[in-house]
Amino acid sequence: MRMVDLIEKKRDGKELTKEEINFIITNYTNGSVPDYQMAAFAMAVYFQDMTTEERANFTLAMVESGDQIDLSGIEGIKVDKHSTGGVGDTTTLVLAPLVAALNVPVAKMSGRGLGHTGGTIDKLEAVPGFHVEIDNEEFISLVNKNKVAVIGQSGNLTPADKKLYGLRDVTATVNSIPLIASSIMSKKIAAGADAIVLDVKTGAGAFMKTVEEAEELAKAMVQIGNTVGRNTMAVISDMSQPLGFAIGNALEVKEAIDTLKGQGPEDLEELCLTLGSHMVYLAKQAESLEEARGKLKEVMTNGKALEQLKTFLSAQGGDASVVDDPSKLPQAKYTFEVDAKQDGYVSEIVANEIGTAAMLLGAGRATKESEIDLAVGLMLKKKVGDQVAAGESLVTIYSNTEDVKAVVEKIHAAYTVSSESVTAPTLVYKEIKE
Amino acid sequence: MRMVDLIEKKRDGKELTKEEINFIITNYTNGSVPDYQMAAFAMAVYFQDMTTEERANFTLAMVESGDQIDLSGIEGIKVDKHSTGGVGDTTTLVLAPLVAALNVPVAKMSGRGLGHTGGTIDKLEAVPGFHVEIDNEEFISLVNKNKVAVIGQSGNLTPADKKLYGLRDVTATVNSIPLIASSIMSKKIAAGADAIVLDVKTGAGAFMKTVEEAEELAKAMVQIGNTVGRNTMAVISDMSQPLGFAIGNALEVKEAIDTLKGQGPEDLEELCLTLGSHMVYLAKQAESLEEARGKLKEVMTNGKALEQLKTFLSAQGGDASVVDDPSKLPQAKYTFEVDAKQDGYVSEIVANEIGTAAMLLGAGRATKESEIDLAVGLMLKKKVGDQVAAGESLVTIYSNTEDVKAVVEKIHAAYTVSSESVTAPTLVYKEIKE
Repeated sequence: MRMVDLIEKKRDGKELTKEEINFIITNYTNGSVPDYQMAAFAMAVYFQDMTTEERANFTLAMVESGDQIDLSGIEGIKVDKHSTGGVGDTTTLVLAPLVAALNVPVAKMSGRGLGHTGGTIDKLEAVPGFHVEIDNEEFISLVNKNKVAVIGQSGNLTPADKKLYGLRDVTATVNSIPLIASSIMSKKIAAGADAIVLDVKTGAGAFMKTVEEAEELAKAMVQIGNTVGRNTMAVISDMSQPLGFAIGNALEVKEAIDTLKGQGPEDLEELCLTLGSHMVYLAKQAESLEEARGKLKEVMTNGKALEQLKTFLSAQGGDASVVDDPSKLPQAKYTFEVDAKQDGYVSEIVANEIGTAAMLLGAGRATKESEIDLAVGLMLKKKVGDQVAAGESLVTIYSNTEDVKAVVEKIHAAYTVSSESVTAPTLVYKEIKE
Repeated sequence: MRMVDLIEKKRDGKELTKEEINFIITNYTNGSVPDYQMAAFAMAVYFQDMTTEERANFTLAMVESGDQIDLSGIEGIKVDKHSTGGVGDTTTLVLAPLVAALNVPVAKMSGRGLGHTGGTIDKLEAVPGFHVEIDNEEFISLVNKNKVAVIGQSGNLTPADKKLYGLRDVTATVNSIPLIASSIMSKKIAAGADAIVLDVKTGAGAFMKTVEEAEELAKAMVQIGNTVGRNTMAVISDMSQPLGFAIGNALEVKEAIDTLKGQGPEDLEELCLTLGSHMVYLAKQAESLEEARGKLKEVMTNGKALEQLKTFLSAQGGDASVVDDPSKLPQAKYTFEVDAKQDGYVSEIVANEIGTAAMLLGAGRATKESEIDLAVGLMLKKKVGDQVAAGESLVTIYSNTEDVKAVVEKIHAAYTVSSESVTAPTLVYKEIKE
């Protein structure tokens, strides 16, 4: 088998066999297939796409290129959730203890990563003492005992994907549905989940700008998951504005605590209930989505979800008393209000601008070397559709420096206040099951 | 400017500016743009094509990536001829002295290369003493004096093309009209010709299998040439069977001599007259194609073309007496006849099979290291349309070994003899001037 022939086959729109795809990934991983051939192949895929069968085989080949996490020691159906990313997305912090409170085992492998705020691990580290430096054995025993634990990402998970992702970034082949879908799914499958709930974001603050694009990606991922024997479904949710109110690490932990009490932002709670219902249903802890939603609401009101969070934090060294007294979380030195300049209705909040404002404060990493300030961030006081008066606060800035001029400017640039009333955007557009 | 953005621009079907194309080629040549980005770019070009303007700029950028031959010291309009390649193509050996006899300056830069037979230089070296190791100054003075000289290829002509050609070969991006056209034209333009006559081959033995494909390539090259100020035209000619009778180095020199006397194979003479007329016309040595053709026939019958060949060979150390006594050319030890197995008409001669048969004898190089045997080769006794009787010779093999079993098999496989009469294929399909 020669790589050049396989590039040509894909270039000509023909379907590659499982053996051919394995040849490509195996030899790309070990370096026998050079980057220039893989780059030509990726561009051919960009134009010619892949069939469902090819996508599944491509994903599996990447899964098999490195370590695979064995979660078989954990009782029950392990359900993982993945979000395609956005601004102020606190769902993981809420969902992990929330569904665990209903006996859904949550064995979460998470990362730090670059972005507007830290990754899930960074956010959790806002809880004094909390750490993810546990070994695999302890991880599994914690999930069996408490139904929820978080561990850092393994070093050699899907190396083929890591290599290909870097290559796509510099060869204009990022924006390809089969390549995006197989990249995401390979990581989820290698991480060992039995079932997967995907939250595909759409709108100005997301990678997929339209519902149609998001749906195409969601379908691609759901098909891959189901083809390789992982029960998979996707929710398409709005990211035309940031989700919830908090953007920042400690601020999001606080927001998650509020939400687990049933006192969080409406949109965040609703999305958590939607995603959570599917997780509970896939884990067979409810016989219908309605039943699952009912149970989730119950643990939010009877305090069980909050108890679950405390157990989880304590088990990994965290000070669970922050749950009852969030003032123990890192606090910023200064707060500033960003006031509306005119009366009207908020018609737009550009999520990426808000995210960049948070990053300017130090809430996220611009480069791998950046240090995160866990205390800083933003609290949105007004969201799209809200009425606002001139002089009223749109956003509260939590900062450790007094100079927030650039941040204020970003926030003003992100907000549009119009004179006519505006309807809040739809939160959940679609649910994709096949 | 970033290469990834230019790949994306081409991927999305947008037109690149001259500056952008220069950026790509300059940085690819100096190594700042890595192979993997160029491979993705080439694949994007494969799918999205290039406009006429882009093709011209891409060609010029490759021309400027290395040395350019300065032929300004040669009087008159320098016309170069280029063939896209086939089996048994003796036209260059005929055309160089033929048009030189009509005062068209022929400053030919030529190569050895891989293939069924040697390149033009290998063929000429069948003439004892002939050599191309002359310096640029001597080359130009020879053309001024004798109207014709041949020199080996310069080391650093179009290095961008050389690098890209190697990359395309292993990334399934060879078969792209803008990339083929710019590759060929960059070499011709860098070699310094004022005007260019292209012989684009079509049929089973050519890279372009159909007349339509050949026409597309011809148009692309003619447009590039004319856009960058080189008067360019193309002839689309048949390569469904080998051209002429001879396939082999000394055999083709002998065939060229015959043709310059007006005693060569009909198809070879006709193609040389067609291409030659255009060369003479573009060099302004005739006022019409008809006049040019008349003059060419005249020098073929009055001995001037043959005299020109002798002058040319002598000037570069060759023994010109071979022209009058071709037995002084390298002679093979053995000849074998390959006889027809049945009565009928030759309906097909697969050019590539015949070429491979010649290569098996040692007439061409399989790898760069192969040594060529100048004496060996094939003489076709029958061509498509010819009537043949069982036992009559189809081909004479000239060999230096007695074991020619594999060669005979190849020849039998190449020939089809049918019971119904067959028309000889069209030789010249089209002439493309814009």
